[in-house]
Amino acid sequence: MVRMQVNLPPDLDPDLRERLVAAEKEYSQGLQREGKIAAIWRVSGQFANYCLFDVADHEELHACVSGLPMFGWISTQVEALSRHPNAIG
Amino acid sequence: MVRMQVNLPPDLDPDLRERLVAAEKEYSQGLQREGKIAAIWRVSGQFANYCLFDVADHEELHACVSGLPMFGWISTQVEALSRHPNAIG
Amino acid sequence: MVRMQVNLPPDLDPDLRERLVAAEKEYSQGLQREGKIAAIWRVSGQFANYCLFDVADHEELHACVSGLPMFGWISTQVEALSRHPNAIG
Amino acid sequence: MVRMQVNLPPDLDPDLRERLVAAEKEYSQGLQREGKIAAIWRVSGQFANYCLFDVADHEELHACVSGLPMFGWISTQVEALSRHPNAIG
Amino acid sequence: MVRMQVNLPPDLDPDLRERLVAAEKEYSQGLQREGKIAAIWRVSGQFANYCLFDVADHEELHACVSGLPMFGWISTQVEALSRHPNAIG
Amino acid sequence: MVRMQVNLPPDLDPDLRERLVAAEKEYSQGLQREGKIAAIWRVSGQFANYCLFDVADHEELHACVSGLPMFGWISTQVEALSRHPNAIG
Amino acid sequence: MVRMQVNLPPDLDPDLRERLVAAEKEYSQGLQREGKIAAIWRVSGQFANYCLFDVADHEELHACVSGLPMFGWISTQVEALSRHPNAIG
Amino acid sequence: MVRMQVNLPPDLDPDLRERLVAAEKEYSQGLQREGKIAAIWRVSGQFANYCLFDVADHEELHACVSGLPMFGWISTQVEALSRHPNAIG
Amino acid sequence: MVRMQVNLPPDLDPDLRERLVAAEKEYSQGLQREGKIAAIWRVSGQFANYCLFDVADHEELHACVSGLPMFGWISTQVEALSRHPNAIG
Amino acid sequence: MVRMQVNLPPDLDPDLRERLVAAEKEYSQGLQREGKIAAIWRVSGQFANYCLFDVADHEELHACVSGLPMFGWISTQVEALSRHPNAIG
Repeated sequence: MVRMQVNLPPDLDPDLRERLVAAEKEYSQGLQREGKIAAIWRVSGQFANYCLFDVADHEELHACVSGLPMFGWISTQVEALSRHPNAIG
Repeated sequence: MVRMQVNLPPDLDPDLRERLVAAEKEYSQGLQREGKIAAIWRVSGQFANYCLFDVADHEELHACVSGLPMFGWISTQVEALSRHPNAIG
Repeated sequence: MVRMQVNLPPDLDPDLRERLVAAEKEYSQGLQREGKIAAIWRVSGQFANYCLFDVADHEELHACVSGLPMFGWISTQVEALSRHPNAIG
Repeated sequence: MVRMQVNLPPDLDPDLRERLVAAEKEYSQGLQREGKIAAIWRVSGQFANYCLFDVADHEELHACVSGLPMFGWISTQVEALSRHPNAIG
Repeated sequence: MVRMQVNLPPDLDPDLRERLVAAEKEYSQGLQREGKIAAIWRVSGQFANYCLFDVADHEELHACVSGLPMFGWISTQVEALSRHPNAIG
Repeated sequence: MVRMQVNLPPDLDPDLRERLVAAEKEYSQGLQREGKIAAIWRVSGQFANYCLFDVADHEELHACVSGLPMFGWISTQVEALSRHPNAIG
Repeated sequence: MVRMQVNLPPDLDPDLRERLVAAEKEYSQGLQREGKIAAIWRVSGQFANYCLFDVADHEELHACVSGLPMFGWISTQVEALSRHPNAIG
Repeated sequence: MVRMQVNLPPDLDPDLRERLVAAEKEYSQGLQREGKIAAIWRVSGQFANYCLFDVADHEELHACVSGLPMFGWISTQVEALSRHPNAIG
Repeated sequence: MVRMQVNLPPDLDPDLRERLVAAEKEYSQGLQREGKIAAIWRVSGQFANYCLFDVADHEELHACVSGLPMFGWISTQVEALSRHPNAIG
Repeated sequence: MVRMQVNLPPDLDPDLRERLVAAEKEYSQGLQREGKIAAIWRVSGQFANYCLFDVADHEELHACVSGLPMFGWISTQVEALSRHPNAIG
């Protein structure tokens, strides 16, 4: 699970911003279709998200995250998750 | 999304600990079966978890969390989530 | 505005806990009826609240807060508020 | 409840600052008239505020906050609130 | 009591810096002569100060602080103070 | 300037608490009469205070603070202050 | 990589402490011999260590860490590591 | 052990970035070949690393770290490590 | 350089406290006479100190610090220091 | 004792940087020769230092620190120190 805080400066060139938002969408949806991003949520009231990855190992995790078009503007917090003993199904 | 850190003292009476663990499991699985807990993950290497709630409102969220048998030993961080614009499906 | 985090230990004597909860309710509702507490909200998922005081000065604020039956178990964060220039009505 | 810290740089173009302040006022008062902002307070001594939202869900909360004309310059802290058991009236 | 940390960038235009320092001095001394600033101390080794206000209410506190010529460059921490029961005289 | 947060446990023996409060008052007022404590304020809403010392040096500061009857229960933050260039009178 | 801070209370029963230290040593060396702990270092001046795990996945990581005889007294910080592009050999 | 967080601004001149990345690689691999860097790991999901130095003393540690081509953009956390009593081999 | 915060509980058995203080003094002065502690200062207003060690390596540092009679009650922060290029003499 | 973190931006004009480093050296060595700086150490792996001042009072401390040629780029943490009861010689 990765919490990502996006810090695009408010005076960023509008064209660049638009291109970044579009590229981010395409990249994120690609990873979702490949099943590497299992789920993604917006943090309400912030330019931030939680992203649940389903990848083979930490190498693939790093490749996915560092490949984000907005990676240079993002602060991440990574938590290693595992199956909870109380989880059903 | 609620991150819960469980702080059971290591010298807790073993019977109480066992009863708490069992009650927590029953309570948590009940909420999962009702669909109020949509997902739950263990934070690897910690007595902690991430718990994704799917409830009607903040009243129900509070009722679910404060009803946890271990609630008195748990520190919580709550993040309000919403649909991410890039989410598919 | 005061954020209060209540730290009642989970092994507190149940009678004392019950008396504290009852006394807190009576005290809090008394201040609400006098108009000194203008509003109070539960922080969802925590034994915590936000309390909006409407008092004459900081002396009265301190008297109200330090008079809480649970004051010894409460950590507070106080923020001085004033009218917002954009507020209507 | 959302605490917002506004970080307009002191060397911001004065025209842009003026337009932002005016747009923020209009936007905020619109949400107040619609009842989506139930209350707003200035944090004394800071360019910051507490804003109490009364919205249907987290989607609407995010829409309201991310629509703020100054959103790009604001750091937010969001707390999910619910009714306090001791609240009267 | 307000702790103020002043963050003038070291590459600020020297004329602007000089004008700000002079305006700050005039403003601060005006408030001192009116009795609204009861005392002010430099934090040794920092571009920071503690400022003790003696004002009617939080509105006046905000007006005084936000009127500082350097307000845009200052981070503040505000603590509501009251008379100490052990204070003499 | 010393900020003191007092952490007396709520289940402290009432006699000990009473003796500590009385001893603290006597000690504090003694230092005030000697002029070593120039001022003391209660932090509203907390069992905490700001205490302005006027002592010869850091040795005397430490002697005054560590001599407090409640010293073992107090967390302190010390800030070295000096005359502010804008102070009048 | 897991940073572990051990918080054994200084008044712990000496026999229990001795048994815990011995059990920890046996457990840790067992994981080292199995190759699941690739390396372990003492943090100088603290009852703390860095522990580099070489395990199949997060499930195994959690099993190893939560199986520590001192787990109930340990605070952990977990960082997911991967191969560094500049690493040789 | 040094944790390094690299803060290259996303709008850094691409040529400079490329030169820095290349110089960093050469420098890092030189230290590895000399045995002064015993190991280096990427922190997954961040532009950060852990670097284990094997140097004669703190002078050499500082020389190695401050000589990094990206040193001006790096925030470091340094932990002094020693042999763990439970380490084998 | 090690900053040590001593957390002796105020209700510690007075005899134990006295023995700890005496043992700490003897131990500390022994290390000073051997030259392993080059200097030690009290943090004014706190039960804390800064201690400058002059030891062969991190093993010896850990041996010195963990051998403190009060080690179990002390929180430490360790900073690796080296010669400053501007230091004279 | 003052801990100073120097935040010179990596893209600072090289001439200005050189002049600042030279001026800092001259200033620091002047204070050392006058005995106002009793000792100075580099924090290994950081552009930071610890500086032990031996001055008459907080006014002189502030004058020394705020006179540093790099003062505008430095974040300071000041700790008031006094003689430790266990110090010898």
